[in-house]
Amino acid sequence: MVKRYLSLIPFDDALHLLKSSFNNPGKTETVPVTKTLGRVIATPVYARYSVPEVNLAAMDGIAVKSRDTFGATDQCPVTLGDFARVNTGNILPPQFDAVIMIEDTWEAGDRFQIRKAAFPWQHVRPAGDDIREGRLVLPKGHMVRAFDIGALATYGIAEVEVTMARVGIIPTGSELVPLGTRPQPGQVVESNTIMAQVLLASMGAVCERLPIVRDEPALIQEALLKAAEKNDLVIISAGSSAGTRDFTAGSIAAVGELIFHGVAVKPGKPMMLGKVKDTPVIGLPGYPLAAQTVLREFAVPLLEHWGLAPFPKQVVRAQLATPLASDLGFDEFVPVSVGRIGKKYWGISRSRGAVVQMSTVRSNGYTHIPALVEGYDAEHELDVFLTTDPANIERTLLFSGAIDPVLEELGNLAHDQGLFIHTASAGTTSAILSLKRNSCHAAPMSLPSFSIIKECRTLLPYLESLDLIFVNIATQEQGIVSVKEISTDALDSLCWVNTRKDSPARHLFDALLLSHQIEPSRIQGYDNEAATPGAVAAAVLAGQADAGICTKGLAEKHGILFLPVAQEQYELVMRKEMLEDPRIITLISLIKSPAFKSHLNCTGFYSTTLTGRIRSLSSENIEMP
Amino acid sequence: MVKRYLSLIPFDDALHLLKSSFNNPGKTETVPVTKTLGRVIATPVYARYSVPEVNLAAMDGIAVKSRDTFGATDQCPVTLGDFARVNTGNILPPQFDAVIMIEDTWEAGDRFQIRKAAFPWQHVRPAGDDIREGRLVLPKGHMVRAFDIGALATYGIAEVEVTMARVGIIPTGSELVPLGTRPQPGQVVESNTIMAQVLLASMGAVCERLPIVRDEPALIQEALLKAAEKNDLVIISAGSSAGTRDFTAGSIAAVGELIFHGVAVKPGKPMMLGKVKDTPVIGLPGYPLAAQTVLREFAVPLLEHWGLAPFPKQVVRAQLATPLASDLGFDEFVPVSVGRIGKKYWGISRSRGAVVQMSTVRSNGYTHIPALVEGYDAEHELDVFLTTDPANIERTLLFSGAIDPVLEELGNLAHDQGLFIHTASAGTTSAILSLKRNSCHAAPMSLPSFSIIKECRTLLPYLESLDLIFVNIATQEQGIVSVKEISTDALDSLCWVNTRKDSPARHLFDALLLSHQIEPSRIQGYDNEAATPGAVAAAVLAGQADAGICTKGLAEKHGILFLPVAQEQYELVMRKEMLEDPRIITLISLIKSPAFKSHLNCTGFYSTTLTGRIRSLSSENIEMP
Repeated sequence: MVKRYLSLIPFDDALHLLKSSFNNPGKTETVPVTKTLGRVIATPVYARYSVPEVNLAAMDGIAVKSRDTFGATDQCPVTLGDFARVNTGNILPPQFDAVIMIEDTWEAGDRFQIRKAAFPWQHVRPAGDDIREGRLVLPKGHMVRAFDIGALATYGIAEVEVTMARVGIIPTGSELVPLGTRPQPGQVVESNTIMAQVLLASMGAVCERLPIVRDEPALIQEALLKAAEKNDLVIISAGSSAGTRDFTAGSIAAVGELIFHGVAVKPGKPMMLGKVKDTPVIGLPGYPLAAQTVLREFAVPLLEHWGLAPFPKQVVRAQLATPLASDLGFDEFVPVSVGRIGKKYWGISRSRGAVVQMSTVRSNGYTHIPALVEGYDAEHELDVFLTTDPANIERTLLFSGAIDPVLEELGNLAHDQGLFIHTASAGTTSAILSLKRNSCHAAPMSLPSFSIIKECRTLLPYLESLDLIFVNIATQEQGIVSVKEISTDALDSLCWVNTRKDSPARHLFDALLLSHQIEPSRIQGYDNEAATPGAVAAAVLAGQADAGICTKGLAEKHGILFLPVAQEQYELVMRKEMLEDPRIITLISLIKSPAFKSHLNCTGFYSTTLTGRIRSLSSENIEMP
Repeated sequence: MVKRYLSLIPFDDALHLLKSSFNNPGKTETVPVTKTLGRVIATPVYARYSVPEVNLAAMDGIAVKSRDTFGATDQCPVTLGDFARVNTGNILPPQFDAVIMIEDTWEAGDRFQIRKAAFPWQHVRPAGDDIREGRLVLPKGHMVRAFDIGALATYGIAEVEVTMARVGIIPTGSELVPLGTRPQPGQVVESNTIMAQVLLASMGAVCERLPIVRDEPALIQEALLKAAEKNDLVIISAGSSAGTRDFTAGSIAAVGELIFHGVAVKPGKPMMLGKVKDTPVIGLPGYPLAAQTVLREFAVPLLEHWGLAPFPKQVVRAQLATPLASDLGFDEFVPVSVGRIGKKYWGISRSRGAVVQMSTVRSNGYTHIPALVEGYDAEHELDVFLTTDPANIERTLLFSGAIDPVLEELGNLAHDQGLFIHTASAGTTSAILSLKRNSCHAAPMSLPSFSIIKECRTLLPYLESLDLIFVNIATQEQGIVSVKEISTDALDSLCWVNTRKDSPARHLFDALLLSHQIEPSRIQGYDNEAATPGAVAAAVLAGQADAGICTKGLAEKHGILFLPVAQEQYELVMRKEMLEDPRIITLISLIKSPAFKSHLNCTGFYSTTLTGRIRSLSSENIEMP
């Protein structure tokens, strides 16, 4: 590991090396015009003939020589013998240079009388009105849009030459199984090369995914040589084990040149760049978010540099809802969820775990923290690159607080109404601070009725100053779980598993201890924090602790004993002014909907008696405005 | 015509009728995950198993029971016999709940000594860290991105159900020929249905384009019935003749119901909506820009309403560079080119001719003028919906002035450097006013050396106040074209074809008449304005006029006589401050490039002696800053 750290290449240098170490292969392909959407024109397209090719009548009427009409007035009408009847779109006979609308003529036997002169080219759609022969239709580098294709077809252009590049993608790793095979524990579905293929093909690359190569240097070398021969770019996905990565670097060096191994980018550090038979080889780290970063920040720019379809990069300036730390010396890329609250855009950074793909799935953008930045404070404004249509940002709701699975169903219902709920896990205090900062639309919270008083000792000033309202989502029971029957008279005789500071279960545990006048220091395992409420039940079931606090639902799911302690109101806490936001109005109507209540009831874990009730700190029930 | 105008339906009403008269067919299809980019999830996707499925070691070291480690300190080390050696990613044996890094252990025979307690779940990647079994991966309505596909594959999801709709597209019109056949004069390549197919397929519709139907009611009715049977939406493209349109409306009524014919939308007025076998039938006008409008404003929203992939709608607020008139009572859609000048975005509206497809091709957006607006003044700020990546707007240069074909080659070279030149035709005065307003980056102008003095009589105050510079593009000769030899001594004895007011050739003609002391009123044909310089040469060649003014190049192209009158400097006029804009610096380097000069020389129409010279009003040559 130490060796690799020493040789890390800065992000900009790595990108420069990638772009400058190889010639642009300049590959193109000729494709039918119907297949060109989103492709980039390689050779300028010129009109082969004028459209229209000849002058056409632009009105129903008579084609005339304008010279013959000069001097015609009401007082002094002119009678024309030299004319042709024409309808809109008809060819204008070449001897004529104007059209007189039929309404402006008077029939006089087989001739027409007119009372107004026609100016030359009056009501004539001239040849080349749309485009003239030989004129440029689409320049080199133009990305083709649907309506461009209509124009190309009109101009008789059936095929065009567009940019392309051949990309060979090699998955390596003995622990991998192909998509479609159920992985055994310890096995992983090979998905990084699928992601690479879909992403790069969308830019116009022709991607070939090779079969999975086992962790054997000879096999990897053979695959590299074959792929480098046929392709303009080779991407080798390294598998997730350290051993595999080492094989790949060695294999590149054995059959070509290893330009660098390791970049000062997070996630993405183990990236490699090599050259085999003059073809660039990008070594993709095995961890999915690292692979994403290397694909987006290296492979995509290389293909753009070669003239393939540029990847849309839409930016929104957003303020950070929470502080964001960063390692000095590393360019970091962090998934972010952005939403608009009032007139400000706020971004919540998501887990940076390089294996947590849901982090990317659940975000609508990402941010880039440059190497020389150590992190940002909350409220710092930065660029967020969107991974969704910018219009969706306007319909995104940010929730910060206690995340219960029931929010998923609410999110599902909301999504169907065009609203996107992005949730970030936060403790009660931190969620209330978000409400104070107005950096979330709502804070889901579990406030057991008897603990709210304790909460409010410190938080009451905020709560009161903010004029908060509480929208009830569901009621559930919190209690003590155990394998053996326990008594609340001897809480300090048990070995406990606790939950994270500021979590609802921990607040409840503290309140419970307080009511029994037990000092936390007397509790064995008080400092053992399980990562999730589910982990509490799991730890108790596995015998790693005698007792813990979680919901009745989780106890039942794990088949362990449950001693009720408190009715917990799972509520969406928000500023009262939010009730005027149409998005929140829709959200509340969804909470009150029979579909949502019936889902809650089906789970068997929740009571819906109070679902949809809106209360404030001072009154039990308030009406929607 | 009168009948149709009376029955025009307002835009909003038409859209409402379209969305409300039919049930959402709710079609879906199951597709391999690799084919889902940009598709919309129809059925929520849940994780089939947890990822990871079991707890994994997150470090190289030993797996232990945390309970066994309690109390270990430097003073009081603990020796563990119950452990397992693990590497990162290995399965954590179920009896253990923590990992101690190998660096924090001391081997003691076949046992390990530790000096610090391990907390539960230390260095453990818990089961479900990425996602837990049964949890939501993608909600209904989610549009799939490349990195979502990676996650789906990781979670073993090989197929997903996405929204779709079947669309049958019928081209009608006896004047149509299929793409690939060279149209004869009066024939048109059938392209509107190609455009419809490409556009709607990009939203996830499965489109079938039927063969061209001749203008016969029985054939049209047969095609309608067949298409309505098999599809969720039928689009019938009406051909461009009035007769054809009438057949279509009648045919819809004969086999179903004609809901409306004619909308108060421009372009797009002749649109029809019908119902055949409960299937909506949209009648597309034959004129391409009208067809585009109906597709984008009606067919696309209907498919979005049915849950297909939403069409990106990116908006930029821009000021109008020129006034924009609009018919009261009509919702108008106008192609626009947008660029940024300084900190402001400016939009130049393009030709609204419903047959000029190049108008759409050459624009990077469009604007929507509501029915109750009669138009806007210059500098009015409005929404422009982009048809290009917003990043391209930053690299768009707006030119307003005299458009010579040579700008195309310059545009080609610029495009290759990532710069997009959008040109709008404007007279000299109007171009100078644009420079004054700062609503164009540069104004291409032809200023014959002896007419500039005359120009400047009115324009000099502007020119001086603006500190303009003139970048020479090329020199060309303007002169008098004729079929028979003419003498400049008897200009008033000839029948002339003139050019548009404020055009370079017209300014030259006026200057010529002035120098011969001839009143324009004495010139026969002075008011006959040809649409383009090419039309001047064509009119002279066709004998419609004796003489006209155009360039030597056009005279040679048409094989007619040319009498030189003036050397014309074709220059790019801009504010001096533009020389600091990197985009303009690139542009000027392209004008000076050998590639551009060699193109100019190849045409044989231009002299490049002065190409690239930069002058100001006061000095002949100025240096780049």
